[in-house]
Amino acid sequence: MTDIPVPFSDVIKDIQPEPHLPWKEISERKRADRQRYLERRAEWLPKQPIPGSQKNVTTVVRVELTAEEFAIVCCDATELVKKMSDGRLKVVEVVRAFCHAATIAQQLTNCLSEICFDEAIKRAEELDEHFAKTGRPVGPLHGLPVSIKDHIMVKGLDTATGYISWCYKSVAEKDAVAVNILRKAGAVIYLKTNNPQTLLSLETDNNVYGKTLNPLNRDLTPGGSSGGESALIAFHGSPLGIGTDIGGSIRLPAACTGLYGFKASVGRIPHAGLLGSHDGMDAIIGVLGPISRSARDLSLFCKVMLEYEPWLVEPPLLEIPWKQEVVEGVGIPSRLSFAFLWDDGVVNPHPPIRAALERLKRQLLAAGHEVIDWIPIDHRYAWELITKLYFLDGGEEYRDVLADSGEPPTPQTEWILAQVPNDGQPFSVPEIFKLNLEREKFRVKLAEHWNQTKTRTTTGRPVDGIISPCAASLAPKHAGTRWWGYTSYWNLADYPAAVFPVGRCDPHDGADSEENNTAPVAPTSDGRNEFETYWEPSLYKDFPVCLQLIGRRLNEERVLGMLNILEHATNVNANCPDIRS
Amino acid sequence: MTDIPVPFSDVIKDIQPEPHLPWKEISERKRADRQRYLERRAEWLPKQPIPGSQKNVTTVVRVELTAEEFAIVCCDATELVKKMSDGRLKVVEVVRAFCHAATIAQQLTNCLSEICFDEAIKRAEELDEHFAKTGRPVGPLHGLPVSIKDHIMVKGLDTATGYISWCYKSVAEKDAVAVNILRKAGAVIYLKTNNPQTLLSLETDNNVYGKTLNPLNRDLTPGGSSGGESALIAFHGSPLGIGTDIGGSIRLPAACTGLYGFKASVGRIPHAGLLGSHDGMDAIIGVLGPISRSARDLSLFCKVMLEYEPWLVEPPLLEIPWKQEVVEGVGIPSRLSFAFLWDDGVVNPHPPIRAALERLKRQLLAAGHEVIDWIPIDHRYAWELITKLYFLDGGEEYRDVLADSGEPPTPQTEWILAQVPNDGQPFSVPEIFKLNLEREKFRVKLAEHWNQTKTRTTTGRPVDGIISPCAASLAPKHAGTRWWGYTSYWNLADYPAAVFPVGRCDPHDGADSEENNTAPVAPTSDGRNEFETYWEPSLYKDFPVCLQLIGRRLNEERVLGMLNILEHATNVNANCPDIRS
Repeated sequence: MTDIPVPFSDVIKDIQPEPHLPWKEISERKRADRQRYLERRAEWLPKQPIPGSQKNVTTVVRVELTAEEFAIVCCDATELVKKMSDGRLKVVEVVRAFCHAATIAQQLTNCLSEICFDEAIKRAEELDEHFAKTGRPVGPLHGLPVSIKDHIMVKGLDTATGYISWCYKSVAEKDAVAVNILRKAGAVIYLKTNNPQTLLSLETDNNVYGKTLNPLNRDLTPGGSSGGESALIAFHGSPLGIGTDIGGSIRLPAACTGLYGFKASVGRIPHAGLLGSHDGMDAIIGVLGPISRSARDLSLFCKVMLEYEPWLVEPPLLEIPWKQEVVEGVGIPSRLSFAFLWDDGVVNPHPPIRAALERLKRQLLAAGHEVIDWIPIDHRYAWELITKLYFLDGGEEYRDVLADSGEPPTPQTEWILAQVPNDGQPFSVPEIFKLNLEREKFRVKLAEHWNQTKTRTTTGRPVDGIISPCAASLAPKHAGTRWWGYTSYWNLADYPAAVFPVGRCDPHDGADSEENNTAPVAPTSDGRNEFETYWEPSLYKDFPVCLQLIGRRLNEERVLGMLNILEHATNVNANCPDIRS
Repeated sequence: MTDIPVPFSDVIKDIQPEPHLPWKEISERKRADRQRYLERRAEWLPKQPIPGSQKNVTTVVRVELTAEEFAIVCCDATELVKKMSDGRLKVVEVVRAFCHAATIAQQLTNCLSEICFDEAIKRAEELDEHFAKTGRPVGPLHGLPVSIKDHIMVKGLDTATGYISWCYKSVAEKDAVAVNILRKAGAVIYLKTNNPQTLLSLETDNNVYGKTLNPLNRDLTPGGSSGGESALIAFHGSPLGIGTDIGGSIRLPAACTGLYGFKASVGRIPHAGLLGSHDGMDAIIGVLGPISRSARDLSLFCKVMLEYEPWLVEPPLLEIPWKQEVVEGVGIPSRLSFAFLWDDGVVNPHPPIRAALERLKRQLLAAGHEVIDWIPIDHRYAWELITKLYFLDGGEEYRDVLADSGEPPTPQTEWILAQVPNDGQPFSVPEIFKLNLEREKFRVKLAEHWNQTKTRTTTGRPVDGIISPCAASLAPKHAGTRWWGYTSYWNLADYPAAVFPVGRCDPHDGADSEENNTAPVAPTSDGRNEFETYWEPSLYKDFPVCLQLIGRRLNEERVLGMLNILEHATNVNANCPDIRS
C-alpha cells in the first residue's frame, strides 16, 4: 500500500452562479467555448471541408493526419504504452496525434464535451522528461491518452453530464477514483466525451451539445450513453476510453461502431466520482469500464485499475485482485463450451447478426469447441423489472433536473420516460423491498438455469460462456433505439460481458432474402413493429458486426481469457472492422 | 461443481390454518409441543431439580451427563469431527450426548425453539453405517451436531422467528443454503434455538417461548438475537451453532457467554433461506455466522461453507474461495500492529472490559506486537444512521406483524421501536437514496481513517486489526441492553469481526474503585445514565470477558489468522472461560 489512489469526495464548483439563463443560451455558450478551444490549435482543424452528405467519415483521419500521426493513432493502447515505455515513441508525439485526430472527430461527429489539450501536452512533456532522466516509464500506462465520458469527474473540468442545468455548475474539484488511478499509472487525460441527457439512453443526444454521430455512417447513432467515446475511438481519436454501463451504455456504443467494450460485475472496477441523476440508488448499479480497439486493451485497463488496490479507498469495491494469469488462459479448459443466445424471444435480431452468430458457431466448432443453444428465460420480464428498479422514484429526479433549466426532453429521453412504471409515482418502501426480492429471485433462477446446462454439455460442466447479440439491430438511425434487452438483461443479472467485433456485414447476410427485407425484426409478442424500420441493407454496407460474450458473476478475467481463446480459435480478430483493414 | 448446494426458494407451509387464536393460546401450544417432545426422552431430563435461585447452572451438565457424554460435550467441533472421522467416536454417541445436554439446557435456560432429535439420531445411524461400510466420513463435518437459530429455515420445522403470528404457519419446505451445506458436509441438525421478537434485539425474549437465560448467571441475558445459541453452546448443549448478525446478534451473545463468534463481511457466507421482517431490505444486510467454543471452529465453519461453491446458487455471494492458508498465517506479518478502541466516545466500557483491554495490550507488547490507540470517529452518528437504515419503512412492518396476532411488544422491542427515526414514518425514495449515500460516505471516511494509521505505526503499514470491546458492559440484566454501538458500528462499516474470550472478570478489575462503582458507564454525552445500573461487581464474579478483533472488509481469513496469532502470543486461550477451567 505505497501508492493507493486518492479517495473520491464529490466536491464540485459553480463557476457561473447566475441561475437562470435561457437554456438555449447556455447551450450556445458551451458549444462556443468548445469550438473556441479547438480553434486555438488551427493546425489540427480539418484542412479539407467534408460535406454533410459524406456518411462514412472514418477515412478522413488518414487524409488529415501526417503519416507519423496516422501510424500512431492506428496502434492500440497496449502497443502505444509499449512503444512509449521503451522510448520508441515520445509521449508528446502520441498525445499530439490523438489531439489532432480528436479535433477532426469533433468537427465531423460532435463527440467531445470538455477539452484540456494544454494540460495534456504539459503532462506529456513532463513524462518525456521523466523518461529522458530515468530511462523508465512512470507507470503501466506511461503516456497513454485516455478519453473520459462526460459524467466521470475530471478535476478542473465541468461535469454537465448532458444536462443544461449542470453546465458551468459542476466543475470537479477532484478526480474520480478511476481517473486518479489513470493519472498515477501515467495516462494523459486530454478530453471528455459527450453523453446523452439523463444518461438513460442507448444513443447520445442532449441539449447542451446535441447529437453525436456515428463516424461509420453519420445517419446512424454511435450508440450510448458512452457514444462520445465510441464515435471518438472508432474515428481513431482516442486509443482507450472509459464509459459506464447500467443497461448497455458501454456495450452498445462499442457494438454500434465495431469496437471492444467491457462491463464487469458491480464492485470490481472503481466507480466513485461520477455525476449523474439517482446518486445513492443502489437497487441496480452501473459499472465503469473500457472501450477499446483490441481485446488485450480491455484487460490492460482492468489490470491497471486493480493494481492500485482501489478497495482501500472505495468501500463498495471488492478486494479481488486482478488475475491476469486467468486472462492468459490459466485454469480455462482448452475445450470450451458455449451457449448461443440466438434470439431473446422478444425482438429477433437483424439478419446480419444472426449470420454472424452462425459464422462464429461454425468457427468455434471447427476449432474443437462445443456450442449448444442457450434457452432464453424471462427476457421481457427482466426488462419490466429493471425499468422499475431504474425508476424507483417514478422518474421524478429526471423530470426535476430538466425542469430546473426548462430544457425539453430529447426524443430518447421522451421514450425512456414513457417506460416509467407505476404511473410515474414513486414506489413505497414495502414495494421497493419486494422489487429487490424479485431481482434476487431472477438472479437465483438464472444461476440455476446456467448450472443446469451441465445436463446438455458433453463436458459435464455447465457452459463456460454465453454468446449473444449485443442488440436486435446494428447501429440504429438516430432516435430509433428501442429494445435494450440484449444488454440490460446482464446488468440485472450482474454478469460480466465483453463486446467484440466479428467481422463486417456481408451483403448476402439475409439482405437478399425477400422475407427478411420485409419484416426481419418484428417484435415477437407485443404487436408493435417499430423495429422493422431499422433494417435497410443499404445503410449497413460493410458495417461492422459485434457480438457479446457473457460469463458468470465476478468472472471478469475468465471472460477476457475466453475472448482471447475465441479470437485465436476463430481468427475473428483478422476481421476486425478497423480503419486499417 | 460436483456437489453444489441446492438453491433456496422460500416455500413455507401453513400447518395450522385457523388464523386467529388468542396469542397466549398459541404460545401455550408451542411451549407444550416443545416440552412434550423432550419428555418423550425421559432419560435426558434433569434427574435433580435445580432451584431457580441457582444462578450459575453451567456445572449441572457435569452432574447430569455420564462421564462419556461429558467428555464428548467438552470437545470443540474440530476435535469431534476428527474423532468421528477416524472412528474413535460414533456419531450416535455424539448426537445423543448433545441431545441430552440440550434437553437440560432447555429446562434451565429456555434456549430451544424447534426440536428434531428423532431425525438427528436416524441420520447419525446412517452416518455410522456409512463409516462402517466405507471407512470414510461423508464430508468435512461428519457427524457434527449443529444448532440452528430459529429464523434460519430447516426443512420440516416451523420458522416462527419469535413472532406469534408466524407460529405453525412457517414450516420450511426447503433448507436454507447454509443448512443444506451443513447436511452435505455430514453435519447433523438436531434442534433450533430461540430468538427474540423482531430479531432487532441484543437479548432473547419473545411471546412464543419467553426469555432465554444466561447459564452463567440466569439473572442476566445470554445476549441476542442469537441468544438461544449462546445459552445452549455455553451450557455445552451444542458444539457449534449458526446465528445471524445485523447489529451484533452473533457477537453480543458470544460476548455475554464467553464464547467465540464471527461476523463476516456481507456476501461471503451463505445467507439465503432466512425468515424475518424486512425481507428485501438491502440498505443494511445481515450476515450468517458461527458461534463456537474455539477459534479454529470459526474457520472450520467458514471453510466448509465455501468448499461447496455456494455462489453458484446464491447470487449475492462473492466468488472468493476460502483462503485457509491465510488463517494459518500465510501472508500475515509476524509482527502485527493493533489499534485499541478503548472507548467509543458515547458509552465508556465497564471496568473489567477496560482492564481486559489493558491486560491484552501488555500481552501483545510482550509478544513483540505493536499497539496504538484507535481514534474513534462518528460512533454516535453511525448509530443514528444505522437506525434510519434499519427502519426505512418507519417500523411499519414490525408493528404490522405484531398487530396480526395482537401480541404485545416485549420490553426490548418497545425500546428499539422507540429508536425509530422520522416519527415512525417511511422515508421517501429521494431520502432513501440520500441515506445510502450517507452510508457510503461513512465507509469512505472510515477506510481513509484506517489508511491514515500508517502515519502512526512503526511498520509503515496501516494497522492490521482493531481490538475493541464487544459492548460497554458484560452481559446485562434482562431487558437492560441499550447501547449497540460497539457491534453495530462494524455492520455499518461491513468489516469482519471476531469475538473471543480473554479471561475471567478479576474482582480487582475496577470493582474496588469507589469511583468506578458509582458511575462507571455513564454515557458521555447524552445525559442519560441508565447504563450505570449494570455494573454490580457481585453479578460478574468470575464472569468471562470477551473482546472483539476487527479487520478490513472481506479480510475474513486475515481476521481469523490474526486471532490465532493473538491467542498464541498471549496464551489467552488458556484463560478461556470454559466449563473445563
